[in-house]
Amino acid sequence: MKCYFDHVATNPLHPDVLEAMMPYFKEEFGNPLSIYELGTKARDAIERARASVAGLINAKPSTIVFTASGAESNNFALRGIAIARQAHGKHIMVSKVEHHSILNAARFLEKSGFVVTYLPVDKYGTVDPDTVRSSITKETTLISITHASSEIGTIEPIKEIAAIAKEHNIAFHADGVATVGNIPVDVNDLGVDALSMAAHQFYGPKGAAALYIKEGLRIVPLIYGGIQEGGRRAGTENVPAIVGMGKAAEIAQSEMSRRIDHVRTLRDRVIEALLRVPNVYLTGHPEKRLPHHASFVVEFIEGEAMLLMLAMKGIYAASGSACSSKALKSSPVLLSIGTPTALAQGSIVFTFGEQNNNEQIEYLLQEFPTIVSRLREMSPFSKGWQ
Amino acid sequence: MKCYFDHVATNPLHPDVLEAMMPYFKEEFGNPLSIYELGTKARDAIERARASVAGLINAKPSTIVFTASGAESNNFALRGIAIARQAHGKHIMVSKVEHHSILNAARFLEKSGFVVTYLPVDKYGTVDPDTVRSSITKETTLISITHASSEIGTIEPIKEIAAIAKEHNIAFHADGVATVGNIPVDVNDLGVDALSMAAHQFYGPKGAAALYIKEGLRIVPLIYGGIQEGGRRAGTENVPAIVGMGKAAEIAQSEMSRRIDHVRTLRDRVIEALLRVPNVYLTGHPEKRLPHHASFVVEFIEGEAMLLMLAMKGIYAASGSACSSKALKSSPVLLSIGTPTALAQGSIVFTFGEQNNNEQIEYLLQEFPTIVSRLREMSPFSKGWQ
Repeated sequence: MKCYFDHVATNPLHPDVLEAMMPYFKEEFGNPLSIYELGTKARDAIERARASVAGLINAKPSTIVFTASGAESNNFALRGIAIARQAHGKHIMVSKVEHHSILNAARFLEKSGFVVTYLPVDKYGTVDPDTVRSSITKETTLISITHASSEIGTIEPIKEIAAIAKEHNIAFHADGVATVGNIPVDVNDLGVDALSMAAHQFYGPKGAAALYIKEGLRIVPLIYGGIQEGGRRAGTENVPAIVGMGKAAEIAQSEMSRRIDHVRTLRDRVIEALLRVPNVYLTGHPEKRLPHHASFVVEFIEGEAMLLMLAMKGIYAASGSACSSKALKSSPVLLSIGTPTALAQGSIVFTFGEQNNNEQIEYLLQEFPTIVSRLREMSPFSKGWQ
Repeated sequence: MKCYFDHVATNPLHPDVLEAMMPYFKEEFGNPLSIYELGTKARDAIERARASVAGLINAKPSTIVFTASGAESNNFALRGIAIARQAHGKHIMVSKVEHHSILNAARFLEKSGFVVTYLPVDKYGTVDPDTVRSSITKETTLISITHASSEIGTIEPIKEIAAIAKEHNIAFHADGVATVGNIPVDVNDLGVDALSMAAHQFYGPKGAAALYIKEGLRIVPLIYGGIQEGGRRAGTENVPAIVGMGKAAEIAQSEMSRRIDHVRTLRDRVIEALLRVPNVYLTGHPEKRLPHHASFVVEFIEGEAMLLMLAMKGIYAASGSACSSKALKSSPVLLSIGTPTALAQGSIVFTFGEQNNNEQIEYLLQEFPTIVSRLREMSPFSKGWQ
């Protein structure tokens, strides 16, 4: 049996999304900037997609800038806003549970003369709004907090933090890559100034992503050049991928509550059953977490080995974040929530999706304890435990 | 009859390229960083594509970094190299016939404390290597010159300029977006340190592009984040588009000489015939130009009107560069070659491709003079001429 339980890494494309994309790989191949019909049809298709993506987060179409990846959106937001507002001050804040694209962009800004505060989190990975408030200085111009961690699933109190930022006239960006398309996201309700999202996180194509930029928020481009995207992001538009993102957004909006019910049921079964395996601990918040996300640390075991043994059984999961799974380092996110280094090695993340079903979950629940036992038998770490 | 004569704006996808991409939109949807089979298959596909793209420019696969557009490659090169080498000096040089993505990235660097020299060109748009040499200062760290202008077709003396840069220990980047896949490009023969390219310029997909970075050349990322592309360009890889770029590169390499013969024949007929229309002038170099590129200025006429009348006849062409065709400003490239402002308004660019044939050219040669006459009858500019 094949069980794809790694939906935070990427998602299969929805068949209707691919179908919507196909004409733009064939006859409708025009450059959206061309003034003849082939160009205007491509341009119209992009604008329809922009409206669909905007609709998914309750924004105006004009606030959506298409990019090529969540990482690009995050770099664009963090650097573009910090640089545009640097006359106000050069202090920015991010949390310790941010994605690498935020953390490493923040480090680049540090090298460019900015001061960055890396906000601590509690044992669930939650940023405390009071800590945000007390860390604000006169120089603070930008706060960027992930809407949810793709590694431990915790949903952050974005609305509260955005309100604090607003009080102090500080721009607020949320990394919504793990949330947009998976849970309801309303930029007005949340009060964010900017929000990153990526199509392949909700059954759209790779290569299409976006940044919501609230009207009036100043930002400098990451990619300079032509007049595409209102001069905010240059480069010939990836028309088929953008069209696919639009279609995926439409489907996500109409299917969201059904999808959430589906994956939450699977997730709850997995969490309940796996926590009965000895020395297996949930990471992230027990309730305020992504509905498709079950993450654990397994004591006395190395996560990579667990992944490989699961893969041999056809079960595909992740250990740590997708972007560091080859790096074999302890996850900074797990360390930030106080997980001991040895225990952090045993990270395992299951994320569920549309095509998963009860039969696959049964299979996982049957195989997982066996794999854990076998690995513990082989593991030098487990000696003290046995 | 439909005649697509705008191949510098974008190209239709080669059917074999789309076929090669399709599995990665369907069953092979994995994230290349995942360690299970679905991930490794995606990763292997990317590495095969990397080898194909490298082969097209006679480079080692490890020197190719995939990006999402020519504009991204140009921003990455100009800013990434300038910043990485800023301890050597903060003077860079670009030409006045560069693409907007180079010119506007250069302006961003100026705001960040760099000094930029915009090198003049002669009446054909050619950069004089002696001017490059005499403009070098002790602070010069980077020279970036386009391999060919997409607007006037002129091929620049890259090899000579690269040699001068090397003599002075200056990094040299060439914008090869208009050349790679269309004419032979050999990075070792040219002696460039970095070279931009874009798949949709040679019948590959939009959303896939690359930067060649010579071994040992220091560059900082434009997009920070995960470990993708050796840590040089973060973001989940657009696997289908990258696979498509690899396939397009393979086809371009094997078909190049036949393709060049085909488009050059069409181009030469068009240039010869259109120059017989009164007050029509070729722009760019008469010989050292892209083989598929015929560009003109038509006196007493506004280019946009000409484009629209041609489009009504099913003939699709460009006026100025694709990225500014909606901007209705006089082209900086045409002004840089000494075209009077009024004459620069009458810019028209025909670029040919695989699917063009003699019958389409006949049709163009029949319609063009009629359209020119009609527009001149209506034009206030033409009064003096009549």
